[in-house]
Amino acid sequence: MDQRKILLIIFDGLGDRPVTELGHKTPLEAAPKPNLDWFAANGMNGLLDPIGPGIRPGSDTSHLALFGYDPMEVNTGRGPFEAAGVGIELQKGDVAFRCNFATVDERLTLTDRRAGRIKEGTEELAKALDGLKLGRVKVVFRAGTEHRAALVFRGKGLSPKVSDTDPHEEGKKILTSEPLESKAKATAKALNLFTREAYEILKDHPVNRARVAKGGAAANMVVARGAGIAPDLEPITQRLGVKAAGIAGVALIKGMFRAVGMDVLDVKGATGGLDTDMVAKAEAAIKALKSYDLVVVNVKAPDLCGHDGNASEKIKVIERIDQMMGHLKAHLGPDVVVALTADHSTPVAVKDHSGDPVPVTIFGEGIRVDEIPHFDERSAARGALGRIRGQDLMPILMDQSNRIEKFGA
Amino acid sequence: MDQRKILLIIFDGLGDRPVTELGHKTPLEAAPKPNLDWFAANGMNGLLDPIGPGIRPGSDTSHLALFGYDPMEVNTGRGPFEAAGVGIELQKGDVAFRCNFATVDERLTLTDRRAGRIKEGTEELAKALDGLKLGRVKVVFRAGTEHRAALVFRGKGLSPKVSDTDPHEEGKKILTSEPLESKAKATAKALNLFTREAYEILKDHPVNRARVAKGGAAANMVVARGAGIAPDLEPITQRLGVKAAGIAGVALIKGMFRAVGMDVLDVKGATGGLDTDMVAKAEAAIKALKSYDLVVVNVKAPDLCGHDGNASEKIKVIERIDQMMGHLKAHLGPDVVVALTADHSTPVAVKDHSGDPVPVTIFGEGIRVDEIPHFDERSAARGALGRIRGQDLMPILMDQSNRIEKFGA
Repeated sequence: MDQRKILLIIFDGLGDRPVTELGHKTPLEAAPKPNLDWFAANGMNGLLDPIGPGIRPGSDTSHLALFGYDPMEVNTGRGPFEAAGVGIELQKGDVAFRCNFATVDERLTLTDRRAGRIKEGTEELAKALDGLKLGRVKVVFRAGTEHRAALVFRGKGLSPKVSDTDPHEEGKKILTSEPLESKAKATAKALNLFTREAYEILKDHPVNRARVAKGGAAANMVVARGAGIAPDLEPITQRLGVKAAGIAGVALIKGMFRAVGMDVLDVKGATGGLDTDMVAKAEAAIKALKSYDLVVVNVKAPDLCGHDGNASEKIKVIERIDQMMGHLKAHLGPDVVVALTADHSTPVAVKDHSGDPVPVTIFGEGIRVDEIPHFDERSAARGALGRIRGQDLMPILMDQSNRIEKFGA
Repeated sequence: MDQRKILLIIFDGLGDRPVTELGHKTPLEAAPKPNLDWFAANGMNGLLDPIGPGIRPGSDTSHLALFGYDPMEVNTGRGPFEAAGVGIELQKGDVAFRCNFATVDERLTLTDRRAGRIKEGTEELAKALDGLKLGRVKVVFRAGTEHRAALVFRGKGLSPKVSDTDPHEEGKKILTSEPLESKAKATAKALNLFTREAYEILKDHPVNRARVAKGGAAANMVVARGAGIAPDLEPITQRLGVKAAGIAGVALIKGMFRAVGMDVLDVKGATGGLDTDMVAKAEAAIKALKSYDLVVVNVKAPDLCGHDGNASEKIKVIERIDQMMGHLKAHLGPDVVVALTADHSTPVAVKDHSGDPVPVTIFGEGIRVDEIPHFDERSAARGALGRIRGQDLMPILMDQSNRIEKFGA
């Protein structure tokens, strides 16, 4: 049988729990979404535990699982994926951190953990920090989307076993990084040194003076978390024998793509924010399917609404996702197997990731279409796929696209 | 989001198979049980394989799994849990057995494996055996509920790899324990010596003389099975970060609670028999939830009916369970996540545990309530939880009560 192409669309944080003000419906159940429902009605549906039942996934571990890797085995911290996402080529021995530009007062108390969600000027600020020398440690620093950034320490004898400087909560002081193993002392020391130098350099930087002059929050601090070393992953191209590409707005997910050996396709207007151009992403995916076997699209917006606890905004995002699916429905060729799912639930009532399973729909020629009319959490539970795990998805898609090797004879 | 409390109720052996004389319904399907159904109708339902599909669980292995441990990894025989249940503090190197007081004739043929389900006088009989010396092996012996007891060998060079003396069937002779590995010779020898001495001591004991005078069966023998060493389990308090307590009538389950680091709460009237006071257990659970994060209740009665092959008695027990659930429905606070399940099926047609999955209902604020109106085996199979494993339950409950750590970032 002819091999097919695979389009995997991951709606970040889309899953939810019933919301009282929505009449005990989830945002997915409450939103009008004829195109998503069309894919469910003409596809095979199920529930998916990104890592396993009840396990609260991070976006890093869940994407690894959805790409077919065992996150228990290969997860090495989120910093390296963020660094890869902003285009830093990690070298052996590098330690990478996920960072935010943030705002502190003169006593180094965090007053805004995202520096007013700064959008402009971060590249200039990053340049002022990139290339610093901290003793024998060399700093590589790049800005990501909005307030996000990646920090890499390069040098001998570094260790990722250090605690965060990010207090994670406003009103708290910037933390002193502590070594979590004895050979991590130099790394913790370098991180604390970097933190002080960053403050000294950033507080009077012209970008910040201009921000403050306009009444904005100065991006006068860098907070770091998620230290890790570059993971050693067998490229997906080798594991599955596919040519693969990824489309995402945010650096972390781009980094996930790069780490597993996918090409990263840049799409104009794909910001990773609420203003992202989803139809442009769909267009880019359709185009990419002409030359790639597997195309993965990440849509970050529903996760942001979940973290903000904003049910009505999540519904609006789902309506925009539905328009994107309408575009795909009209333009996708018949030789594509489509999978729709999420990397985890981010219930608006929880304002963070939860372990609730997410719906998954697989659509394409020859699929065992079931009788599930809607794409949502509870409808999916009655589907023909049953309850599967994130790591099961890629083998199922490889099989449905007639690309998998027989196990046995 | 606020953390919630967790109440896990385990109906021992509740699951069943369709019974011909019940019109091919299971006891759960045949019994009137409006309160159990209310929890199902307002909860999220599914099927649960305590260990895995088709695996016939013991009560020990299934409880370990329901507490989140891997029974394949940590199970070390049932004896140690029984011993812990009757209050014996196991020491390193101890070998523990699960025992029954039994009745034998003078040729040591088993005539009643439960000594007429003896209820009184077992403590005196146990005292007569406790403290015996068998060469260099010291005996610790305690009575449990009814005919049940625990035997511990204490000394150097003991091994749990010995066969049972319990023939498991009436009409058969007491077995000679055989070593299952060469270094178990001394232990098997001690067990055979204990068996002979127990008979000599018990056969003329005043308790037995009085029993025989009244026409009862003499508890003149001790049969041993399930040899094991104390398992080295990480306490659940550490693993899950919860303060946990358990309520049960029978020693084995109390031993399971102690082995995983739960406090054991004694409830007046909780006998572990058919006469147990279930509402008293419910009351105790409600009270315990004020100071504990996780409370586990085991109700043994349905398992007894299954072992006895008594469908109508099992239905009566279910009606009493339903009254208990009515009490909980009326008195539980809104901050509690409730899970109802069984540790295994004990079908009346099988008269022993089977590998059939059991229903599970999870009830509480924000749960993805499905459209399952009844708490029974076949209704549960269509629920939003799908088919999960025993080991999945505790992570799901930790997630639903907003208590679980994120894996990844």
